[in-house]
Amino acid sequence: MRIVVLAGGIGGARFLRGLQQAAPEADVTVIGNTGDDIHLFGLKVCPDLDTVMYTLGGGINEDQGWGRQDETFQVKSELAAYGVGPEWFGLGDRDFATHIVRTQMLSAGYPLSAVTEALCDRWKPGVRLLPMSDDRVETHVAVTVDGERKVIHFQEYWVRLRASVAAEAVVPVGADQAEPAPGVLEAIASADVILFPPSNPVVSVGTILAVPGIREAIAEAGVPVVGLSPIVGDAPVRGMADKVLAAVGVEATAAAVARHYGSGLLDGWLVDTVDEASVPAVDEAGIVCKAVPLMMTDVDAAAEMARAALALAEEVRA
Amino acid sequence: MRIVVLAGGIGGARFLRGLQQAAPEADVTVIGNTGDDIHLFGLKVCPDLDTVMYTLGGGINEDQGWGRQDETFQVKSELAAYGVGPEWFGLGDRDFATHIVRTQMLSAGYPLSAVTEALCDRWKPGVRLLPMSDDRVETHVAVTVDGERKVIHFQEYWVRLRASVAAEAVVPVGADQAEPAPGVLEAIASADVILFPPSNPVVSVGTILAVPGIREAIAEAGVPVVGLSPIVGDAPVRGMADKVLAAVGVEATAAAVARHYGSGLLDGWLVDTVDEASVPAVDEAGIVCKAVPLMMTDVDAAAEMARAALALAEEVRA
Repeated sequence: MRIVVLAGGIGGARFLRGLQQAAPEADVTVIGNTGDDIHLFGLKVCPDLDTVMYTLGGGINEDQGWGRQDETFQVKSELAAYGVGPEWFGLGDRDFATHIVRTQMLSAGYPLSAVTEALCDRWKPGVRLLPMSDDRVETHVAVTVDGERKVIHFQEYWVRLRASVAAEAVVPVGADQAEPAPGVLEAIASADVILFPPSNPVVSVGTILAVPGIREAIAEAGVPVVGLSPIVGDAPVRGMADKVLAAVGVEATAAAVARHYGSGLLDGWLVDTVDEASVPAVDEAGIVCKAVPLMMTDVDAAAEMARAALALAEEVRA
Repeated sequence: MRIVVLAGGIGGARFLRGLQQAAPEADVTVIGNTGDDIHLFGLKVCPDLDTVMYTLGGGINEDQGWGRQDETFQVKSELAAYGVGPEWFGLGDRDFATHIVRTQMLSAGYPLSAVTEALCDRWKPGVRLLPMSDDRVETHVAVTVDGERKVIHFQEYWVRLRASVAAEAVVPVGADQAEPAPGVLEAIASADVILFPPSNPVVSVGTILAVPGIREAIAEAGVPVVGLSPIVGDAPVRGMADKVLAAVGVEATAAAVARHYGSGLLDGWLVDTVDEASVPAVDEAGIVCKAVPLMMTDVDAAAEMARAALALAEEVRA
């Protein structure tokens, strides 16, 4: 079975680990969000791709969900001693090596998809990890701070400001000119199932869908497309998705997110059992909805969610 | 007193520390060799400038004479895990930060001289440290390995091969097109004394002199130019200077090195007491020669050498 998964960072990575346990024989292609990418210290950092790679490759810091295990911070501390920031983005020494290799390969002319493949040669994540695009896309957020309206990089909004101010707009800068990376449209066209893990619907899955051609390819693939709600009990399971949902005028509820994706894209939608009351509303929107536990407390729980998603896919296919 | 010193790496840096003790009130400008510079992992590494900066700024690994104290090697070990080399060049985590800052500033368009000044803002070496040139100069060495003649980067010859094969030629690639960095010619023209520390006469001081205009400016400065022999007892005090001296047809003796610089450049020359017998030969070459202890066993010994060099400068000035 060929499965395509559109993934952001932590939520996507943990769901993928469950999917691997639930469907060990499946051929999984991950289309990773690159809108969170940022240039720091002259290096290209791809937080979402790395979170997927480290998580599936056994190198992730399990407690925080991103970055490397057994990490040290000598480089960052030295950069600070030089007065070179930002200090709010926590790059560790092990992680720096990834960005150094990536930047060196990009400078040598390799596209990000080839670089990602080379990095995965080491990590062997057990999936084919593709960036959504080889073109630069950077999600920016419009905010008002101290009475001044400004547009900042998503990471500055998310990591430095901890989404503490309203996101007035979320713009995936460059997305409209970006092309899907090599293999992305082919993977979608030959997929048996397409899954949206409980990643952020705006700045993760939404950014991937903003690359011209990807949304259309999914809609036209003619295979079940099933998503899992990142909103449980009217709040994000983790992170601050409510803040960016507000920016696009979507309520932070499991049903509203399903309607935001829409029945033109989604065939099935899983909500948490606490949101069982919202099932009829999603069904009415033309999306087959089920309520199952959606808390990824461990790999087994994530595997159960993946099984439920695959079962729902078979149900809507029939 | 304004002193200009042409410096390579370890020998130059340790001599400079002695000079600071010997002449604490002096205004010292260091013209640093950049021919040893190398791009590693996409980063610009300037070993000689950094050795001077770390040594005078209190950050040097005293035992090995280069690199940072209390160093760790997480980044290097991770790069190796990615299969990315070279592994023979020992960059530590703290050191990496320097190269990351430098590379980021160079990429932003700052010349190496401005970058070096910015790095020195942190280290406060107590001297004005100028790269010999803002233009890229890379010393290459022609060797024959396994019957095959090839040209390799100086660092590969020095660090990877440990100068274990004959250097058939030493070429400061790019030097003939390079211009002295801003401030270099001005510092020479306004110097009261110019010193050549016991740095490598071929690949350190020789490379600096290969930048058009610098040799001429020193010869025309009209102030005492005094050097200290890096050869003691017919062998290099440290390193493998004999190998690169052979490449330029110069014997590894204190007298031969003095004659290599020549009386058109040098006014005074210090040899070690074990080489006292060579004093007349150097004198005959038109260079005033003295024999004094030249082993930099500690800062006090280096300070004594600096005092002897300054005394010799006053003697030749008179």
